This record gives sequence, structure tokens and C-alpha cells, in this order.
Amino acid sequence: MSVVERSQHEERALRRAIELAGRGPSRGINPRVGCVILDADGDVIAEGWHRGAGTAHAEVDALSKLSEGAARGATAVVTLEPCNHEGRTGPCAQALIAAGVSRVVFAVPDPGQHSSGGAETLREAGVDVEGGLLLSDAETALGDWLPAARLGRPLVTVKWAQTLDGRAAAADGSSQWITGPAARADVHVRRAAADAIAVGSGTLLADDPSLTARTPGGELLESQPVPVVFGSRAIPADAAVHRGPHEPLHVDGHDLDAALRELHSRGIRSLFVEGGPTLASAFLAADLADELVVYIAPTLLGGPRVAIGDLGIGTLADAHRLTFDSPETLGDDILIVARRGTR
Amino acid sequence: MSVVERSQHEERALRRAIELAGRGPSRGINPRVGCVILDADGDVIAEGWHRGAGTAHAEVDALSKLSEGAARGATAVVTLEPCNHEGRTGPCAQALIAAGVSRVVFAVPDPGQHSSGGAETLREAGVDVEGGLLLSDAETALGDWLPAARLGRPLVTVKWAQTLDGRAAAADGSSQWITGPAARADVHVRRAAADAIAVGSGTLLADDPSLTARTPGGELLESQPVPVVFGSRAIPADAAVHRGPHEPLHVDGHDLDAALRELHSRGIRSLFVEGGPTLASAFLAADLADELVVYIAPTLLGGPRVAIGDLGIGTLADAHRLTFDSPETLGDDILIVARRGTR
Repeated sequence: MSVVERSQHEERALRRAIELAGRGPSRGINPRVGCVILDADGDVIAEGWHRGAGTAHAEVDALSKLSEGAARGATAVVTLEPCNHEGRTGPCAQALIAAGVSRVVFAVPDPGQHSSGGAETLREAGVDVEGGLLLSDAETALGDWLPAARLGRPLVTVKWAQTLDGRAAAADGSSQWITGPAARADVHVRRAAADAIAVGSGTLLADDPSLTARTPGGELLESQPVPVVFGSRAIPADAAVHRGPHEPLHVDGHDLDAALRELHSRGIRSLFVEGGPTLASAFLAADLADELVVYIAPTLLGGPRVAIGDLGIGTLADAHRLTFDSPETLGDDILIVARRGTR
Repeated sequence: MSVVERSQHEERALRRAIELAGRGPSRGINPRVGCVILDADGDVIAEGWHRGAGTAHAEVDALSKLSEGAARGATAVVTLEPCNHEGRTGPCAQALIAAGVSRVVFAVPDPGQHSSGGAETLREAGVDVEGGLLLSDAETALGDWLPAARLGRPLVTVKWAQTLDGRAAAADGSSQWITGPAARADVHVRRAAADAIAVGSGTLLADDPSLTARTPGGELLESQPVPVVFGSRAIPADAAVHRGPHEPLHVDGHDLDAALRELHSRGIRSLFVEGGPTLASAFLAADLADELVVYIAPTLLGGPRVAIGDLGIGTLADAHRLTFDSPETLGDDILIVARRGTR
């Protein structure tokens, strides 16, 4: 088999492995990974994928389909660098070495602090290793897991609604229905796409939100985020948040970094910060917002009740720089989505 | 001539009159008006248009092309209801009556408090009068003159730049270049489109702006607004605003309504309010902004320096309701244009 033929077989196998990865769960602490094993002729002899925490990793799943000795001299094609750590299922790098695999091709380097180094381990054992193929496709297939693993915390979206002049409420505190139904429906779709939804304990006590993702008719959407209450005040036993499909988590909001690491270790890849202004401003002040979702209502209020409070920024040079997506019209309102950093 | 034929002749004449009106000046206290005179067969016997304050109105201009008695029994077709007031040129309604015109067709009723009533005067003299033809086209041709005449004041656009969270400056006051070059170029184009540009005397003293409309390269655009300084503090003799093509007007800003009526009486149809925040907020608080032009920069600042201050609104029900145009991306910034009222 020529080098060109081999690379064609391997690329085809990697595309298949990306497809297999998609069969795994899109939430949880582990990534979706797929693996295809090719024999010396480039023919597929086994396929595997990861089905979620506590079950076999993709490589081990694929190897399990083969009789003893059948992987000797084979090529393992994997969407993510084989792990190097002793988790509940043993390091995949060791399993591949033990099975006698002679070549490993993977797409995305493992960003995990504890799990990376698999490629090096394999090379030290004499296995031919090649990484970085079809990188962009494989990264996309990993979804939020990958950036969250790189950051060591969930991706954070901070959402708020404001008037054109940046107010969240009138002077007397009245704030209901600043934005219209299209904006509110959009919020619920974004809630459903997040692993968890955060609210400050003050807002929880004031508004008693259910923190579920619902249709405009009030029915639960298929996917529901885990409610996370930030702050020291206790969640009342009769709070609406207890009646949703997930029991709420309660974290002390004083060290946001630590709280996010804790949520990440529980498998939360994305956090949708609902508010109120105090919690939203705290995430922004700590520069922990990867994405901002801002609904702008066609009104002016003026006065003291700004949507975002103090961020500890003294001078213009210290302003947080963002990049805007194209703005959208949602009913009478405008949606601006912004991301951290400049283009 | 049948009624249908007559109406076809008159509509054609009115389209021609709208065309003639466009030859007049687009700025100043008087509207652009055109007039066509038809004989009993529906043939054009004279045309006229208004060339600016102090010159003949369109009807009188057209009549002046005819020999004595030639207008007897004729039809005058005019884009605006013939005026009824004794201005520098005498009321057109009387001129048409004196010339023996037997029928007058016009598009837009005169909104002027002192000049309207021409149609009634004509009818009382036995002239056949029909108004409201091609209303929309004729209104468009009158531009800002018409809404300004209806309001008795210039159309007011309030412009400001803010961060996504509604701040105009950092805590220490630093605010230069919040928005990028595309937004700044857009401001200058809008300045050039306005009859006048307003700035508070505090901002004038602090920033010494030239208040001209310029290209990104710094050259003056063809059309320049009249600078108007609002406030009690004197304009320094060496202020940059004196070096522009128009001498600045200085008005006391305490009674904005009165100031606007005064500007309107000087022929200013549209006012672009540049700022600073105090003047912008005063126009908004008085509900005198017909249009808002808001540039949103991709930054967050937090802190006390809001772009819009207090508007005297205590509760949400009293919020000023606006309607958004589709938002635009200008370089890294977003432009939101809003208009008073709901759809």
C-alpha cells in the first residue's frame, strides 16, 4: 500500500470515527469520541465509540470487538488523542500498546491536564503516531467539551435584557416585560442549549424563577439545564426551582473561579448566567464571560437601575474588548451577541 | 373634456409640478413648491416654482408668465395648498382669485398655523378646489419641511455613542475613540444631512469641537450644518466652532421648546444633537427626540458614567416607547436607529 493510499484509508476511517463519536452523549464530563481500527491493508476491522462516563473509551470499545492478537500491527484511528490517565477505565494509550497496535492516527490533541500525554506514551513504546488530521471537523464534533476542557471550566454565557440606554428597571424597580415575546422565546431556546443555568440567590428569593427552558405555551423543552444558585442565602424548601426536572445545585458565589471548576468537574460544559444584575456584573468583572447575549428593548428609562453595575474598570484602556456577531431583530427588540476579545 | 380626461391632465400636471418643486432650495424656511397652470382644454399654459424666501411663491411665479386675463377660467395645479397669509409676497389664494382661476388642484394641505386656510378662501370666492391628490409623492418631495412645519419645530435627532452596557466614558472620564472609524464617518454623513448641529456649552468648552461635517480625511463635506450651542456659558472668541463655514447660533437651553421654535423660525428643519450627555438627556427627558442614532461599541465599562442620565421616569409604564430600524454593523460597532413611538 502506498503512502497516498494509506492516507486515503485513514482519512476515510477518521470521518467514520467522527460519525461514530456522534452516537455518544452530548452532555457530561467525558467527550464524544469515535475509533476505527484498520488492518495492514487499510480495511476496517473494528469500530467503537464512547457511551458516557463509567463506560469504555472509544479505543477500548473498538479493541473489545477483536479477538486476541487481531490488533497486532493494526492502525487505530481516533477523533481525540488517546488518554494517558488512570481513570475508571484505564489509560487508552496502554490498552493500544498492549494490543500491539503499531500506528495511531488522531485528530484533536487531548487538552486535559490529567489525561494528555497519550501520544508521547505511545511513541515511547515504539508506536508510530500522527495527530492533527481533520482537526476542524473533529473539534466541531467535540462541541463545548473541548473549549471547556481547555479552560478547565464551563463556557460562560452572560445574558441580560436592557433598554436602549442600558437600564434593567425603572427607578421604582418595575422591570417586568422589558422585552417582548420573541426575545423571551429566544432566551428559553438558549437555556435549553446550556448544560446549566445560573441565578443569584437574591434574584431567586425575589422572583422565585423555575429556571426551566419552556415553549411560549409553557411546556418544557426537551433538554433542560441544571439550575445553579450562586450565593450564600439558602434556597427555600418551597422554591419553584425544586419543581424542575433537575435538583438545583447551590454554590457559594464568593470565588467564581473555584465555583466554575467545581461545576466543570461535575460535567457541566456550558453555563447560562440568567442574572440578576449583581451576578451578571460579577461574572463580567471577573472577565469570566465567553459570550454575552444582550436583548435591547425599544425604550428609554434613564435613572439609576443600570443593567450592568460596576466592573472595577477605572480607565478606558482597561475596558473589556468584545467582538459583536451581526445584530438580530427579534420582534420589537434587538439581540446583540458578543464574544470575548477582538477579531 | 370628460371628467376622466380632466383628471388625467391634472395628475400629469401635478407630477410635473412636483418635478418643478425640486428645482427650489432644499433648506430654509419655505418649502419647495411647484405649480402648473392648465387651460380649459387641459393644456399647460404656464409653469412656476418657488426659489426661496423673499422670492415669488410657485403660483405667483407661474401666473407671472401669463399675459393679463390669460388665467381666466384656468386650473392651477399646485404641490401644496395655496397659502392664505400676508407674507413678503402676498397670499397666493388672493393672487389666484384675482387672476380669475376657476379651479385649483393641490396635493398637500398647508400645515402652517399662519398660512393655512387657502383652500377655504378660494372656495368662498367661488373657485372649485380639490386637495389630497398624489399626497404621498408630494409629501416626500417636501422632505423635512413638512413634519417640521406640523411640529412647529425642527425634527430632532439625538445621537450618542455608548459601550454595550450603556456607558459613555470610564470612571476617570476617559472616552476618546469609544467607537471606530466607520461609526465616526457615519456621524459626519448624518451631520451633513442636518440643517443644524447642537452641542451643549459644557461640551463646547471641554472639547472645543469644530462641529463641521468632514470626510475621514478631514475635508469638509459639501453640505454643512449650522452649529448651535445650547447653554448659558459664553462661546469663547477663539473656539474652533467659529472657524467653520457658518457662524454658530447661541441659544439658552433652559426652555428647549422655545429654543426649537426659535430655530424653526430661522428656517432650520432638522437638528442633529451631538451631545454631550447632559444635552442629549435633556432632549430625551423633554420627549423632543424624533430619532435616536446610537452607536454601540464592543466594550464593557461599567461604572458611573452612563451615556444617558436621568430622564425623570419613575416607573416602567412611563418609559419612552421607541421603534427600532434594522440594526447595522459599522466596522466593529453596531448602529441602532430608533424612532419615537410604537409601530
